[in-house]
Amino acid sequence: MSVPGTNDFSRPSGRTPEQLREVRIERAFTRHAEGSVLISFGETRVLCTASVENRVPAFLRGKGEGWVTAEYGMLPRATNTRNDREAARGKQGGRTLEIQRLIGRSLRACVDRKLLGERTITLDCDVLQADGGTRTAAITGAYVALVDAVNWMIKRGDIKPKAGRSPIFGAVAAVSVGIYRGVPVLDLDYAEDSDCDTDMNVVMNDGGGFIEVQGTAEGHAFRREELAAMTALAEVGIGELVAMQRAALGL
Amino acid sequence: MSVPGTNDFSRPSGRTPEQLREVRIERAFTRHAEGSVLISFGETRVLCTASVENRVPAFLRGKGEGWVTAEYGMLPRATNTRNDREAARGKQGGRTLEIQRLIGRSLRACVDRKLLGERTITLDCDVLQADGGTRTAAITGAYVALVDAVNWMIKRGDIKPKAGRSPIFGAVAAVSVGIYRGVPVLDLDYAEDSDCDTDMNVVMNDGGGFIEVQGTAEGHAFRREELAAMTALAEVGIGELVAMQRAALGL
Amino acid sequence: MSVPGTNDFSRPSGRTPEQLREVRIERAFTRHAEGSVLISFGETRVLCTASVENRVPAFLRGKGEGWVTAEYGMLPRATNTRNDREAARGKQGGRTLEIQRLIGRSLRACVDRKLLGERTITLDCDVLQADGGTRTAAITGAYVALVDAVNWMIKRGDIKPKAGRSPIFGAVAAVSVGIYRGVPVLDLDYAEDSDCDTDMNVVMNDGGGFIEVQGTAEGHAFRREELAAMTALAEVGIGELVAMQRAALGL
Amino acid sequence: MSVPGTNDFSRPSGRTPEQLREVRIERAFTRHAEGSVLISFGETRVLCTASVENRVPAFLRGKGEGWVTAEYGMLPRATNTRNDREAARGKQGGRTLEIQRLIGRSLRACVDRKLLGERTITLDCDVLQADGGTRTAAITGAYVALVDAVNWMIKRGDIKPKAGRSPIFGAVAAVSVGIYRGVPVLDLDYAEDSDCDTDMNVVMNDGGGFIEVQGTAEGHAFRREELAAMTALAEVGIGELVAMQRAALGL
Amino acid sequence: MSVPGTNDFSRPSGRTPEQLREVRIERAFTRHAEGSVLISFGETRVLCTASVENRVPAFLRGKGEGWVTAEYGMLPRATNTRNDREAARGKQGGRTLEIQRLIGRSLRACVDRKLLGERTITLDCDVLQADGGTRTAAITGAYVALVDAVNWMIKRGDIKPKAGRSPIFGAVAAVSVGIYRGVPVLDLDYAEDSDCDTDMNVVMNDGGGFIEVQGTAEGHAFRREELAAMTALAEVGIGELVAMQRAALGL
Amino acid sequence: MSVPGTNDFSRPSGRTPEQLREVRIERAFTRHAEGSVLISFGETRVLCTASVENRVPAFLRGKGEGWVTAEYGMLPRATNTRNDREAARGKQGGRTLEIQRLIGRSLRACVDRKLLGERTITLDCDVLQADGGTRTAAITGAYVALVDAVNWMIKRGDIKPKAGRSPIFGAVAAVSVGIYRGVPVLDLDYAEDSDCDTDMNVVMNDGGGFIEVQGTAEGHAFRREELAAMTALAEVGIGELVAMQRAALGL
Repeated sequence: MSVPGTNDFSRPSGRTPEQLREVRIERAFTRHAEGSVLISFGETRVLCTASVENRVPAFLRGKGEGWVTAEYGMLPRATNTRNDREAARGKQGGRTLEIQRLIGRSLRACVDRKLLGERTITLDCDVLQADGGTRTAAITGAYVALVDAVNWMIKRGDIKPKAGRSPIFGAVAAVSVGIYRGVPVLDLDYAEDSDCDTDMNVVMNDGGGFIEVQGTAEGHAFRREELAAMTALAEVGIGELVAMQRAALGL
Repeated sequence: MSVPGTNDFSRPSGRTPEQLREVRIERAFTRHAEGSVLISFGETRVLCTASVENRVPAFLRGKGEGWVTAEYGMLPRATNTRNDREAARGKQGGRTLEIQRLIGRSLRACVDRKLLGERTITLDCDVLQADGGTRTAAITGAYVALVDAVNWMIKRGDIKPKAGRSPIFGAVAAVSVGIYRGVPVLDLDYAEDSDCDTDMNVVMNDGGGFIEVQGTAEGHAFRREELAAMTALAEVGIGELVAMQRAALGL
Repeated sequence: MSVPGTNDFSRPSGRTPEQLREVRIERAFTRHAEGSVLISFGETRVLCTASVENRVPAFLRGKGEGWVTAEYGMLPRATNTRNDREAARGKQGGRTLEIQRLIGRSLRACVDRKLLGERTITLDCDVLQADGGTRTAAITGAYVALVDAVNWMIKRGDIKPKAGRSPIFGAVAAVSVGIYRGVPVLDLDYAEDSDCDTDMNVVMNDGGGFIEVQGTAEGHAFRREELAAMTALAEVGIGELVAMQRAALGL
Repeated sequence: MSVPGTNDFSRPSGRTPEQLREVRIERAFTRHAEGSVLISFGETRVLCTASVENRVPAFLRGKGEGWVTAEYGMLPRATNTRNDREAARGKQGGRTLEIQRLIGRSLRACVDRKLLGERTITLDCDVLQADGGTRTAAITGAYVALVDAVNWMIKRGDIKPKAGRSPIFGAVAAVSVGIYRGVPVLDLDYAEDSDCDTDMNVVMNDGGGFIEVQGTAEGHAFRREELAAMTALAEVGIGELVAMQRAALGL
Repeated sequence: MSVPGTNDFSRPSGRTPEQLREVRIERAFTRHAEGSVLISFGETRVLCTASVENRVPAFLRGKGEGWVTAEYGMLPRATNTRNDREAARGKQGGRTLEIQRLIGRSLRACVDRKLLGERTITLDCDVLQADGGTRTAAITGAYVALVDAVNWMIKRGDIKPKAGRSPIFGAVAAVSVGIYRGVPVLDLDYAEDSDCDTDMNVVMNDGGGFIEVQGTAEGHAFRREELAAMTALAEVGIGELVAMQRAALGL
Repeated sequence: MSVPGTNDFSRPSGRTPEQLREVRIERAFTRHAEGSVLISFGETRVLCTASVENRVPAFLRGKGEGWVTAEYGMLPRATNTRNDREAARGKQGGRTLEIQRLIGRSLRACVDRKLLGERTITLDCDVLQADGGTRTAAITGAYVALVDAVNWMIKRGDIKPKAGRSPIFGAVAAVSVGIYRGVPVLDLDYAEDSDCDTDMNVVMNDGGGFIEVQGTAEGHAFRREELAAMTALAEVGIGELVAMQRAALGL
């Protein structure tokens, strides 16, 4: 992949434009949840748990299908200055709702809900420490927790995969890309995120298909070529993330 | 522009893939607001008002800058079946918050907030009737209401454009694109939206720059080529919408 | 009818004391609702939709009766200065609740709920533009939307009128009256409403019976004779409004 | 006063049509408030306290005027079956808001707010036991609490009545009237209220002027003559209530 | 019992350290509730009602057991300065929730819920006037209201005591104790409560067993001996309160 | 210390009655907060962060004093079955409010708020995994985070300790004790907590003084001797915890 660069370009972290931060995926981080993953994208750390419940939302009752949904939260001091606790304020903010809707949609894209039966899997993604890219880390980690929860169900015999088919097909991962000082870069940290021209979150599957693309011009509008360069970078990054998910799962 | 198509492909509305619905822009629809526009994208009708107030949010106080923000609502029976009134439920839903954040960001992209002074312009986008594409119609209509409100301020002498520069630079419009039965199509109506594989909302300026790109795979993940075809379609549609905005404003 | 007046009395609008504003009733204003009416009392414009649903509130379940209820809202910039959006504030204000309770009670007064079956008709009254008298316009318009919705049900065969009886008996309309500069006047606009001594909302049926009378002394307490003069004026105005409702319905 | 009646007419309580329930007004019922009155209309018992605070709402700041406002509540088991506690439900219902707005408006009608200075008097009306007519008892009792609070302020020298004028001019009292089994009756108790054709709440001052008139047809619409008979009954009842207020105040 | 004291020690009220305030228990204070008690601990007055309903919370449905729960409220002007009405603020405060949880737990400690059947008894404790010790007065009074409600159920035949056993076993009462100016004192009033070093609420049954002990160091941490002295004082006080409960119930 | 025991008594964990679970205290667990401690009491893990802000609540403004407060939360899947997220439900539950009030009070007991200046330290205690004793672990860990935050302030020169005095005097720690199968035991885990007769939370300082004592009879009322045995056990446990706090702080 060719990325435009100049001699004097450097990222605050010293990474190359197409370099992910160090990614760590720790399974079974807590003990009660059917899946529990602590994922780190550099200094961003998100605890993703998957909880299985034998009920579905009202709009699905009696249809023989399951549901996959997500909730997102940030501990008040996950960030540099303390944010109000949403539970104390009495409502989740727009950013929170937007992110948890994105996580839910992204993971439903790799689940055959008919095979789940009338069960709900809730993915709770709680940010312990934030340094940019919390939503992409959350999606990438939640996928691993989801696989663990489904395997737990299969092991217990709750789900009987038909013809060997698991309710989960393929993998889903996410990464941010952006234009930082004129250069397309992969996996923005907070220093880059708060100072970039364009910020894009990309969710893809392991087959190279796009599930979500959300790009926002922060400083100036971006061009078609920049969009292409960013999505190309994202493809590279997601390829690596999917490999790490597989490694973490022992596949 | 070349769009893949087949002999037996047809849209529910009978439109060609690259054809917008009939767009109408009616200024001064209500009398109190500084800008008031009823915009129709076919059967989708959104009332966009711009209100000027001599105050800014706390985080901007004393900085000599203005603010542009948006709120979005849907009348309970704008849709085929009645939705609960958000005021009665006691909160705005995630979809509402997501859309109003998008509208606000999109319009701030064409405003020099320093030139506004310490004033807030609120764009209220209320859907009277929904048939798909309410957020893109809202952005396109809100731009016209915003221009009217800024011109009202200039006329009153509240704003003195420096060196002839208005606080508004360029134009902003939005349209949806999608993959319907395998074919990229422009400006989805509800029948298409609820039955398509991919749905993407694109916000652009009149210089051909992207401000927001939000694509979601509904049925199957989309490919890089599909993304390119959709953004190309969006560019065409937005060019037409910007021309209609100019015509409505008498420019 | 005799109305006290003086040579130098004039209403801001130039109307005579017993003159209504121009009233327009536009049916089928939006397409999804079973009844949809845009009513104008001069510059006051209210969109009234009637929605039919096959369920009743908990307190009526299993009783074989239907329910008629109303919700009221005002777009944030329906008024001269922008009001906070109730959905964003997280609750409906006291004035809103008071008005929607009044609309609901008023319309239930002309419905035989047993003949409706276990169905709910919700009348959503949303003020697009306010210039005084929004609640009386809402009641008058909601009646027409209600008739349209009931006729839609009859046409579909959902309701089988017994012995030719529709669930709706008679008509209901409403108007405001007040004492403006010492003179009883009909159908106050905002300029009069904010500067009058007494403001009264009257709801009546087409048989000349009172359904609701709500009078408030704003400046000084009113006398028995003033009450009588105001209710007499209201009778005249409501007679005219009922005729316009009939005309709009093609009766 | 002539009231239509028949030989076989009787009220559940055995009262004559124009007879009030036994009214008791007990001042200084609690010790902390500047005014504290327990008022009984028969079995209806409302505790009305007046609290003086040295601040005004935002819309009055710096105008040199005071404010008088009211809040209304009902203990959960003031009624025959337990009602949810509004504090636990997280909001005041429409009926509560409607009543407290009525109480506030009614008492502001006898106060010269300029003479109060920048102070707020809050009238809390809490129903300990309900048997119909809680809002009219509340208004009648709150007036006495208000007078006590204003006299407390005068005694402390907080208010210096100009030319001997107290901020309170005249008196305000309220009573319900209705048509019960065809007969206009005064001061409905719960047994009558839940079984009457028409229910009207009337607020008047001691000069015979109307401050609020709120009539609702419950069973059938009422006629002009019935309205006149009810308001005439109310005048009689309020005359008696004002006398009792004066007696309680030792005037 | 030995209580340390000095010659110059005196309580604001003139009471001796081990002296309760005057306690009054008035049954049938209001008429609708199955049990209704006005209890006074000196100037603290709390209305405690017991309401019986034929339903249980979701977590008990179908288990054949009943439930006992409590709600607590304070009228806005029960205190020296007015507190916001919790219903108007839209939520119950932490102190309120803490107290009502305590009342509920305390009374469940003397009820055999199996003998209640699937019924809920709700104890509403509303403070009409506060002078310290509202929660302990509430518990002591709620017990009497609870007994009245259970006896009402037995009388109606709703409950058939097995082998003569009532669902209520023993009695429950509560009192506060504290260290005031170095001396352990019983039943703190507001003057003491706001100026003491340690404040402890103790709930006991009539067999001398502790149900709840909640002690808080206000000024300095307390020692093991002080804890012992306070609990000893509480035992004495609760013995007296239980005797008064019995007397009030005519036992 | 003598603890009653029998030959066949055993705790689910195999611990002796007076044995704490393994306690770990990990400082600087996250990087943004001025103090950040992950504390474990066995399988209970709580993240405690201390955030310093240059503002105080309204009731302290201009008094030259600081404030110390706490917030408590539990991740939805910290427990065996998933709990609703409080931010999504729109309010904090009674248990949460009760616990965070307890944590705040406990830590204020070791702070000289005058020496803090007009600053607020907020202790956020978020339970990552629950196995009984979350509130006592939270208090014990929050103390360490508080010390770290105050030392950070001293280092920066924000606070100038007068005569070498830090705003923090002494130490505060907490532990639970209970009667499990008739035997007083220290530091209950979930298996014991849900099956014990009495549960008591004790907060003490390093001088052996009690700050909070909260005991609840779950099964049967407890006796004076049991209270004494439990507080004696708590003293032992807190002595050990204070030593661990000192070790963690390198003192």
